[in-house]
Amino acid sequence: MKLSRYKHSSSVSYALGATLTYELLKTHPEAISRVFLRPQNKYGEDLKKLLLELKQRRISVTESSKAFNTLAAKDNCLVIAEFKKTATSLDGSAETPHIVLVNPSDSGNLGTIMRTALAFDYTNIAIITPAVDYLDPKTIRASMGAIFHLNIETFPSFENYLIKYGQIGSNSREQKRTLYSFMLNRDSKSLTDIKPRDYYFALIFGNEATGLPKSFAESTDTIFIPQTPLVDSLNLAIAASLGMYHFRTELQNH
Amino acid sequence: MKLSRYKHSSSVSYALGATLTYELLKTHPEAISRVFLRPQNKYGEDLKKLLLELKQRRISVTESSKAFNTLAAKDNCLVIAEFKKTATSLDGSAETPHIVLVNPSDSGNLGTIMRTALAFDYTNIAIITPAVDYLDPKTIRASMGAIFHLNIETFPSFENYLIKYGQIGSNSREQKRTLYSFMLNRDSKSLTDIKPRDYYFALIFGNEATGLPKSFAESTDTIFIPQTPLVDSLNLAIAASLGMYHFRTELQNH
Repeated sequence: MKLSRYKHSSSVSYALGATLTYELLKTHPEAISRVFLRPQNKYGEDLKKLLLELKQRRISVTESSKAFNTLAAKDNCLVIAEFKKTATSLDGSAETPHIVLVNPSDSGNLGTIMRTALAFDYTNIAIITPAVDYLDPKTIRASMGAIFHLNIETFPSFENYLIKYGQIGSNSREQKRTLYSFMLNRDSKSLTDIKPRDYYFALIFGNEATGLPKSFAESTDTIFIPQTPLVDSLNLAIAASLGMYHFRTELQNH
Repeated sequence: MKLSRYKHSSSVSYALGATLTYELLKTHPEAISRVFLRPQNKYGEDLKKLLLELKQRRISVTESSKAFNTLAAKDNCLVIAEFKKTATSLDGSAETPHIVLVNPSDSGNLGTIMRTALAFDYTNIAIITPAVDYLDPKTIRASMGAIFHLNIETFPSFENYLIKYGQIGSNSREQKRTLYSFMLNRDSKSLTDIKPRDYYFALIFGNEATGLPKSFAESTDTIFIPQTPLVDSLNLAIAASLGMYHFRTELQNH
């Protein structure tokens, strides 16, 4: 049994805990390569049920405390599922909004954004690198398993994202995706005043510490979330959630 | 120099880093008992300015690497301000909305809620214990200093909060605070349909893992944040932020 701590270059990643393993089994059973079980005297009902389902799928389950020391040193989980990492592509159709995260650097924020995105039915997330590894077990954990329901695609630059997903159709009949950048310029339009017409848009959010580069103010519609001057900014996951919620409820209710 | 790691029972707490120390100096200079400085060869301009202001205020600054090992082992901050913990009371007037957190257990969530609360001009937070220590340096750090601008009061039970802040005036002319509980019952009113009439309300949020006790469904107006069934719930700080944002923008724009 060869095992080493998760690295960005690993071909596999890990779902820590029974809940995440269940979510993975429901969504991508074919990706699971093996499952580790913490040696213990008694198994609870939920765990027994999970083990039965794994057996039915003929997925190998190994008792190993070493696996837990290596992969989940700070975690008291009872199960770890190892799965093959695969690249996904976004749905580029006009009915499908995108979330674009430019250089997100915190796995907790990224996971929380995934969880909220799924809650508000945004299932396509573009990540502009450099960025925190979205397949890191810490990010997966913070997403509460939402990651297994999402299409996530990384791009080396925002331009690369635009080339692939910025428009559809040929020159004469092309439709451009509306781009909304969340920025701290207080002369931007207020979020509460934004009335999107359709779902063919992208909500763009910058890095936790530095925000979006100024160039986004020239090439996109900018949005400011009204806030008192007593705070420097909102937390990234909070800002993204407010944006996703506003666009979803505007389109559903108006 | 007597120093020990922060405990809930300590009479002092700590602002880790120059930004938090600055925020504390602006808002509660009288509470600062002493400041520690990490021994270093060179001070940046911002730090020099801070040290000058501390000197003008006659606040004692001590160079000590031991203080950093004891108080901020996992942090690479250069300054720590020690300050006296004091209890605050909420503003109970009819123009002032309250946020009520029932048994919050995560310092990161609590700090993020404080930061968003200040951003949306909610400056009064009730915490029902047992709860994570809101004066723990980790919470203060997560609040990005917002905590120093807020009134925060703890109560051993929700009933105790209600007795003190649930209504104003005498029996014949009393005005009751409207209580809104955020719950996962999908038969609750949807957040998007809530139209508050005035600022005399409390937004109530439960514990990260267990939510609010069912009894809140009987004694308060319940609110559900519309979300797909693919997620169990939203993160607590996300739910609280969406609630605060909705009430603030409804009252400002309608």
